[in-house]
Amino acid sequence: MPEMFKVLTPADALRVLFDQLPSDVLEESIASGEALDRVLVEKLAAPSSLPAFPRSTMDGYALRAEDTFGATESLPAYLAVIGEVPMGRASELAVGPAQAVVVYTGGMIPPGADAVVMVERTQKLDASNIEVLRAVAPGENVIDVGEDVKEGEPLFDPGHILRPQDLGGLMALGITQVTVAARPRVAIVSTGDEVIPPELTPGPGQIRDVNTYTIAGLVARAGGVPLPRGIVGDDYESLLSAARVALEDADVLVISAGSSVSTRDLTANVVNDLGKPGVAVHGVAVRPGKPTILGVCSGKPVIGLPGNPVSAMVVAGLFLVPILRRMQGVVNPPVRRRLTAKLSHNVSSVTGREDYVQVRLAERDNQLWAEPVFGKSNLIYTLVKADGMLCVPLDSNGLHRGESVEVELF
Amino acid sequence: MPEMFKVLTPADALRVLFDQLPSDVLEESIASGEALDRVLVEKLAAPSSLPAFPRSTMDGYALRAEDTFGATESLPAYLAVIGEVPMGRASELAVGPAQAVVVYTGGMIPPGADAVVMVERTQKLDASNIEVLRAVAPGENVIDVGEDVKEGEPLFDPGHILRPQDLGGLMALGITQVTVAARPRVAIVSTGDEVIPPELTPGPGQIRDVNTYTIAGLVARAGGVPLPRGIVGDDYESLLSAARVALEDADVLVISAGSSVSTRDLTANVVNDLGKPGVAVHGVAVRPGKPTILGVCSGKPVIGLPGNPVSAMVVAGLFLVPILRRMQGVVNPPVRRRLTAKLSHNVSSVTGREDYVQVRLAERDNQLWAEPVFGKSNLIYTLVKADGMLCVPLDSNGLHRGESVEVELF
Repeated sequence: MPEMFKVLTPADALRVLFDQLPSDVLEESIASGEALDRVLVEKLAAPSSLPAFPRSTMDGYALRAEDTFGATESLPAYLAVIGEVPMGRASELAVGPAQAVVVYTGGMIPPGADAVVMVERTQKLDASNIEVLRAVAPGENVIDVGEDVKEGEPLFDPGHILRPQDLGGLMALGITQVTVAARPRVAIVSTGDEVIPPELTPGPGQIRDVNTYTIAGLVARAGGVPLPRGIVGDDYESLLSAARVALEDADVLVISAGSSVSTRDLTANVVNDLGKPGVAVHGVAVRPGKPTILGVCSGKPVIGLPGNPVSAMVVAGLFLVPILRRMQGVVNPPVRRRLTAKLSHNVSSVTGREDYVQVRLAERDNQLWAEPVFGKSNLIYTLVKADGMLCVPLDSNGLHRGESVEVELF
Repeated sequence: MPEMFKVLTPADALRVLFDQLPSDVLEESIASGEALDRVLVEKLAAPSSLPAFPRSTMDGYALRAEDTFGATESLPAYLAVIGEVPMGRASELAVGPAQAVVVYTGGMIPPGADAVVMVERTQKLDASNIEVLRAVAPGENVIDVGEDVKEGEPLFDPGHILRPQDLGGLMALGITQVTVAARPRVAIVSTGDEVIPPELTPGPGQIRDVNTYTIAGLVARAGGVPLPRGIVGDDYESLLSAARVALEDADVLVISAGSSVSTRDLTANVVNDLGKPGVAVHGVAVRPGKPTILGVCSGKPVIGLPGNPVSAMVVAGLFLVPILRRMQGVVNPPVRRRLTAKLSHNVSSVTGREDYVQVRLAERDNQLWAEPVFGKSNLIYTLVKADGMLCVPLDSNGLHRGESVEVELF
């Protein structure tokens, strides 16, 4: 009954899995207005210059800068106002020597003019003449053609996650449709004879399904579409047929397995029979989460998560999230929210495995403390009560009270 | 034509606005499985203890710990195996002295037993007898009733933003429905005679709408529902009637105003006539973003954003995002992603206003540098090229090259 795990480090395990997975990114074309937080798969360059015409940055008068050289309050320059540039239209006027045209912020600079004087730096003499009280330099208060972006200038590389301002930048150039990575569809199957749907009342020995919901949340946050596929009993035939159906509709399959040795074997057998090559990694040097199964079935990743809620979330964070990012071609994964804090208690570990410890953050004595939330990995409220996790690295056998630690916030 | 602004600091402006806004949170009841990133408005306590029965954390034998006291490999304890606890069911067996029952991880501890010995620490003698090779303590490898949470224990306070593990925690207790803040509906009206929809090709003097999309993105990220209401020309009647219709269907109205003095006045007049009390703040000590308008019309917040894309995003971040959080009753706004970096260039400012400067992050010489992306606030690609912003505080007249600065990532 005892089982020998051939355990890999988390980094090695991920490498082994990635080596057996196709590296192509599924794409789709969507409206740019719907593309927030989606991952670009195309390289985009500016189809035209922005702005396409010189624009004023001020309310004032467009003029020839040289006409104002030397102007001061006591020795102003006199200019004839020959008209106004209406917003949203080209000027029909050309500005000649000693002439000026009224322009508004964002309006087009008329031909002949090369600068704008702010209205506050002028004085009206009469209906058609002004004094300019200060010299302006050529180009002053003007945005040049292409000053925002020039035609042909690279805008975004593939793998970029689109932010609010990026959508604005696309729209400014008329790029109203973009090719992005399709959101990976992740089927989630929960197993266990003791597991029941949360809306039912458990009888003796029964517990409600937790992992379907924690994993669905992680999937959504990583850009995937969670497809909960319900609960399956602990027998080979049921699990294999449920896994088959689930994987058909999905790009990734997650099996939240039971935690007993027999159900772990069951999951491994199902993954092996679901499609070639089957199990790639069985057992990872991480606590909690050692009995992790990583497999590839007919080109699709299949993950067997330990059934304990804490283990399931740690393992999903270590493997499922990077898989989903890779499937979307993410180049720079978003910087996770990470804080530095002082550890409030000793944390023991053993060398040769990564330990993930849930911590609560507390501010005391002008100092941010990371307080370990000690609790068995079977306890979902260990995670609920925590603000984040810290990692005790592979080569460490523990961390000391008072040490500075990096906490990844949930 | 020049206009005197009565400018408040950003903090004061927000206070003035909040003082005139109702503080109640609109709520709705939704399925817990759909509640990721939503804000709880109710206080929740555990309706029952979790687990509801004592559970094994190991595959092994449930037994009376005292029967194993003193057991070693050379002097094992002998126990009679009287049966097995099936997963998901109560045990029909009671464990007496010198008896043991097979249990699996997550299975129920049968009456009479108070500990579990791992299967690896035992040896089978025959079909119904084992040797226990090591003593176990009472409670060892057992999760007690209520060890995860106890009945009545507080779970979440109002204002908590639900994370993946929180959904799991709710489901574990059968809380399949929760009362959360309704997502505030934010109508966005773009104004400007020169502004056209992005799918059209601009003629001379015309530009494509940008702010509708950047603001919609910010709204979605802050938990709101963006309702883009199109583009309106720069005249009082059109803007007032568009604003009326937009505000009727929405909880918040954002008007992305033109940037010329005349269109700013237009927006202020419309906000004053849209509902009482109207404009609360006109002008804020922030750059970019000084011509901000904050108003309250018939109990709903109305924001007049400057038309420049950079100003619009800075101001939306300073005012719209906090308004949306308050409307949802958020208690601890998510820690924004924030990094410390070294400033690569001097940044000038003047005391008495907050300056927001876009920066790009670059790693050089083992050091993270914040490189200002200098650019006029009319340039959307100033934001696109940046990784985040830094704030030069009110009382500072600039930052020096080499200074350590905090960068809020986009």
